Amino acid sequence: MASCAAGIRYAGRTDLLLALFEPATTVAGVLTQSKTASAAVEWCRQHLRHGMARALVVNSGNANAFTGMRGSVAVKETAHAAADVADCLDADVYIASTGVIGEPLEPSKFVARLAELARSATPDGYEAAAQAIMTTDTFPKLATRTCKIDGVDITLNGIAKGAGMIAPDMATMLSFIFTDAAIEPGALHAILAPLVEDSFNAITIDSDTSTSDTVLLFATGTATKRGCPRIANGDDPRLDDFRAALAALMRDLSHQIVKDGEGLTKFVKVTVTGAETKAAARVIAKAIANSPLVKTAIAGEDPNWGRIVMAVGKAGEAADRDKLAIRFGDIEVAKDGEAAPDYVESDAAAYMRGPEIEITVDVGVGAAQDTMWTCDLTKEYIAINADYRS
Amino acid sequence: MASCAAGIRYAGRTDLLLALFEPATTVAGVLTQSKTASAAVEWCRQHLRHGMARALVVNSGNANAFTGMRGSVAVKETAHAAADVADCLDADVYIASTGVIGEPLEPSKFVARLAELARSATPDGYEAAAQAIMTTDTFPKLATRTCKIDGVDITLNGIAKGAGMIAPDMATMLSFIFTDAAIEPGALHAILAPLVEDSFNAITIDSDTSTSDTVLLFATGTATKRGCPRIANGDDPRLDDFRAALAALMRDLSHQIVKDGEGLTKFVKVTVTGAETKAAARVIAKAIANSPLVKTAIAGEDPNWGRIVMAVGKAGEAADRDKLAIRFGDIEVAKDGEAAPDYVESDAAAYMRGPEIEITVDVGVGAAQDTMWTCDLTKEYIAINADYRS
Repeated sequence: MASCAAGIRYAGRTDLLLALFEPATTVAGVLTQSKTASAAVEWCRQHLRHGMARALVVNSGNANAFTGMRGSVAVKETAHAAADVADCLDADVYIASTGVIGEPLEPSKFVARLAELARSATPDGYEAAAQAIMTTDTFPKLATRTCKIDGVDITLNGIAKGAGMIAPDMATMLSFIFTDAAIEPGALHAILAPLVEDSFNAITIDSDTSTSDTVLLFATGTATKRGCPRIANGDDPRLDDFRAALAALMRDLSHQIVKDGEGLTKFVKVTVTGAETKAAARVIAKAIANSPLVKTAIAGEDPNWGRIVMAVGKAGEAADRDKLAIRFGDIEVAKDGEAAPDYVESDAAAYMRGPEIEITVDVGVGAAQDTMWTCDLTKEYIAINADYRS
Repeated sequence: MASCAAGIRYAGRTDLLLALFEPATTVAGVLTQSKTASAAVEWCRQHLRHGMARALVVNSGNANAFTGMRGSVAVKETAHAAADVADCLDADVYIASTGVIGEPLEPSKFVARLAELARSATPDGYEAAAQAIMTTDTFPKLATRTCKIDGVDITLNGIAKGAGMIAPDMATMLSFIFTDAAIEPGALHAILAPLVEDSFNAITIDSDTSTSDTVLLFATGTATKRGCPRIANGDDPRLDDFRAALAALMRDLSHQIVKDGEGLTKFVKVTVTGAETKAAARVIAKAIANSPLVKTAIAGEDPNWGRIVMAVGKAGEAADRDKLAIRFGDIEVAKDGEAAPDYVESDAAAYMRGPEIEITVDVGVGAAQDTMWTCDLTKEYIAINADYRS
């Protein structure tokens, strides 16, 4: 892995990452559902079907999004140049770009640097890699976990960048995870995709979705040298520990992204219980976590539970108004559809002054539950996103 | 119509409105889709089925929402007291409440005032009525239109209150419209409901939906004394002029609500063209109009069209990224999926400094279009909604 300052947009900071993988490295990915996805996302979506990887190229400073045909050409040129230095097929190269949109990305700026990066690549360097993919993040995001597959020690390392959105950048969530496990592409995807639901898809800063959101998981298979089996089936029980470690790593990275939310002062966990289905609980939790009125109340340290009732109502999923119950931390705020009899607002107000807030809402119609993580909405968010001019 | 200061929450301002209607007055209504609708909304929904009205009681200061069984009891007591003074059935009384939620509404505070209000009622007084239903609105919202039905002059008067949401109040949109036309309940509903889609449902301040949103249209039928026919069918061509006048009045009132949006500095019209269906165009327009990143860019007078691309993408409806076109006013910003060749950012930046902004997006897949109206998202919005403590 190697990074450098290619001067794509910002001077004096690294903005180009190259990762090279052993032969037989497999890859799985989850990409943005945006209907205006970037050219790099389209490239990855196409090549994830064969599921093999030898190189990853990530640049910050320019998202190469909404750049028309030139965007696709830039992606192809980048892949071709990386394939040259990695001695592989273009189709084995994965690409992600983050930064300004609508400006053509000039790949000549950095393709000339790839050979040099390949020569300087080292087996670690995750911190430098996490730094190279930052845009307006205030800290690099890394996580590591270990586990065992069939008794063999396995390592997982992940990096991520968050929703830094200073104009004219876009919110882009990128995460790349690397493991020495040996897992076939189909199995890798079967493990990754559901875990995204409860990590990267369970966070929201401001409800906006990027054209470039990308999560890629690379499994180099080098642990086979230490006797680790190559596993072909995502349901194989030998993957249970790996799945748990991957889930913990992805949740860790996703929470780091929320904690770097623009202008945030509070980290907020929203749990909805008593819903008809997990999907319904997710819709209600998201309505609460995205509500500007709920988020501004949290910023104001105001235990304004009426706004939570409102958000439950607007979600449109089944909820029994007359059984609704709300807790802030351990404080019972409302039950049976009205203010709890022992509720003392000053207790709730004291709780709201803490840096981490847990909101639990029981909607009283079923047994399913779900959790989202978010942050508050502050004047600083507006300042960051309104006061800077492109 | 009569109003008074009943001291429900605020001192020194009117907070109670009583309207009395002639026998044979019909009513149609559109009520919040919230799953946690207030007791008053449930009362109206139930009685709109018979479609006859003799009285309307509206209070501000307390929304009587999320108050459990006591909420329903308060509504029933209010209806009963109003029926007494109007000499009608309880079922002919319509009720709306706006203000603080979760606090029991004590109807004794104002039911004693209803007889006095009935005695002082006058045939006009719309401005006083518009004032009595305000919570944190900064100006009363009224509109009037005239039209002809079968050659007879008809008047429409409407009042509304907007999304004033100072903690702990909720966003509540109320509108009451009065006409002397004679139209049967089914026909009245057939005219009203579709017009809500392009007026009150086509505005958004911050995507939040109240538990109390209510639009009621009362037709007293007094124009029959001047020879106006009583019309039973919503498709009757004699109602064409009435429908147009009602549409204009509702659009006027709904725009007044946006223009009183909290902390706003810009009034924004978002039109989506080239969509597959009108419903798809609405989803995309709403995604743009509700996007915090789009709204903060507008607050910052930043022609950040990349955020509009993002919002189109996240809407999830069909859009052709490579045909996407964006205009700010008459300025072509992007076309064919990239920055327009003649686009000069300083022109767009100058346009963004105006008080009214029109954004037009063609998504390049069909012939349907739709429009939403909204405002920008400013630090003042956060201040209003976060800095006040309940």
